[in-house]
Amino acid sequence: MEPINNKIIPKPIKNLILAFSGLPGIGPKTAQRLTYFVTQKSSEEIETLSQALISVKNHIILCEVCFYIMETNPEKKSRICLICEGDRNQNQICIVENPLDVIVIENSRIYDGLYHILHGAISPMNGLGPNNLKIDSLIKRINNNIEEIIFATNPTLEGEATAMYIQELISELKTKPTITMLARGLPTGADLEYSDFSTLSNAFENRSSFNYSE
Amino acid sequence: MEPINNKIIPKPIKNLILAFSGLPGIGPKTAQRLTYFVTQKSSEEIETLSQALISVKNHIILCEVCFYIMETNPEKKSRICLICEGDRNQNQICIVENPLDVIVIENSRIYDGLYHILHGAISPMNGLGPNNLKIDSLIKRINNNIEEIIFATNPTLEGEATAMYIQELISELKTKPTITMLARGLPTGADLEYSDFSTLSNAFENRSSFNYSE
Repeated sequence: MEPINNKIIPKPIKNLILAFSGLPGIGPKTAQRLTYFVTQKSSEEIETLSQALISVKNHIILCEVCFYIMETNPEKKSRICLICEGDRNQNQICIVENPLDVIVIENSRIYDGLYHILHGAISPMNGLGPNNLKIDSLIKRINNNIEEIIFATNPTLEGEATAMYIQELISELKTKPTITMLARGLPTGADLEYSDFSTLSNAFENRSSFNYSE
Repeated sequence: MEPINNKIIPKPIKNLILAFSGLPGIGPKTAQRLTYFVTQKSSEEIETLSQALISVKNHIILCEVCFYIMETNPEKKSRICLICEGDRNQNQICIVENPLDVIVIENSRIYDGLYHILHGAISPMNGLGPNNLKIDSLIKRINNNIEEIIFATNPTLEGEATAMYIQELISELKTKPTITMLARGLPTGADLEYSDFSTLSNAFENRSSFNYSE
């Protein structure tokens, strides 16, 4: 099916289908459906979406400490985000791949320390090496005040390779903070029958002990 | 999870997540992912998407005959689309719910007649009655030149109710074109084991005969 080349599709429609198709997780069918939806919306609603897009490009920068996303503020010269500036535990750094991971962890309210966002994972397949990630700046942040570094990269080949790479770099430092990794095991609500070998073997290896009450 | 209300999410990001969430088939998670993707793209790429959105609103109108989508043309006064103007069989009208259905049928190259786009189906649940659809204009199109009207509304409750409603209107006309409906049965590639009762009973009812070669 080549709807994009079809003569009967007006050019503005083709362009929008193409633009939507460039977004991650949006296939040609969804792009068509979104475009049709746009034709039905009022000019004001589409203007809002269009402005929201432009605004993100113009007003979002990265924190110069942890590289989390933040809004530009003409009154402030420093580019330090609300998390780094906030009343947080300054002795812990949690390493994640991207800003969405920060949002998920913050929503869980289970962690009160600092973050460091790598903005990706080492992935030779996608042409991403250590130099494309915010690794140098992470190493520079590690000093005697940092007691623990929590690796929360994705439990994927890329995420684990990235964690191992950074762990080796930290091993070479004089200051050696405690390094921890998020636990691996069965996710809540999972069905044992459908769990994969890797998850199951992690669940067995990391099994916890029952404490008899005395 | 209430990521939208979270203090640590910059306002432009919240706005874009909200704007994306308003699109059909885009949940909060996908909206977050799309927004993060936008932060990583160049200003030019985002400008392109933004312009494509605005352009669809400003340059797309509906054909005044069949209500298919078409591009505005300042040099032409008539608002008649490429399909209506084209070298097509003028004796057939295929009735569909929306412009995407036209694109799918055109891509199949199986039909050479005209279309009529209702822009929806009767759906009391969504507050859509016959007056919200392009039904009056369809009835006005029916004259002695129209030999066949093919109903290609969706095989859903709403699509079938809409077809039945229009079929009754046509029954009251003096000119009575042939009325046909797209065949119902097993879709190609389906697994009989997983087919629903309605599909299966249609497949049995509409079963075709094998012709012995003599």
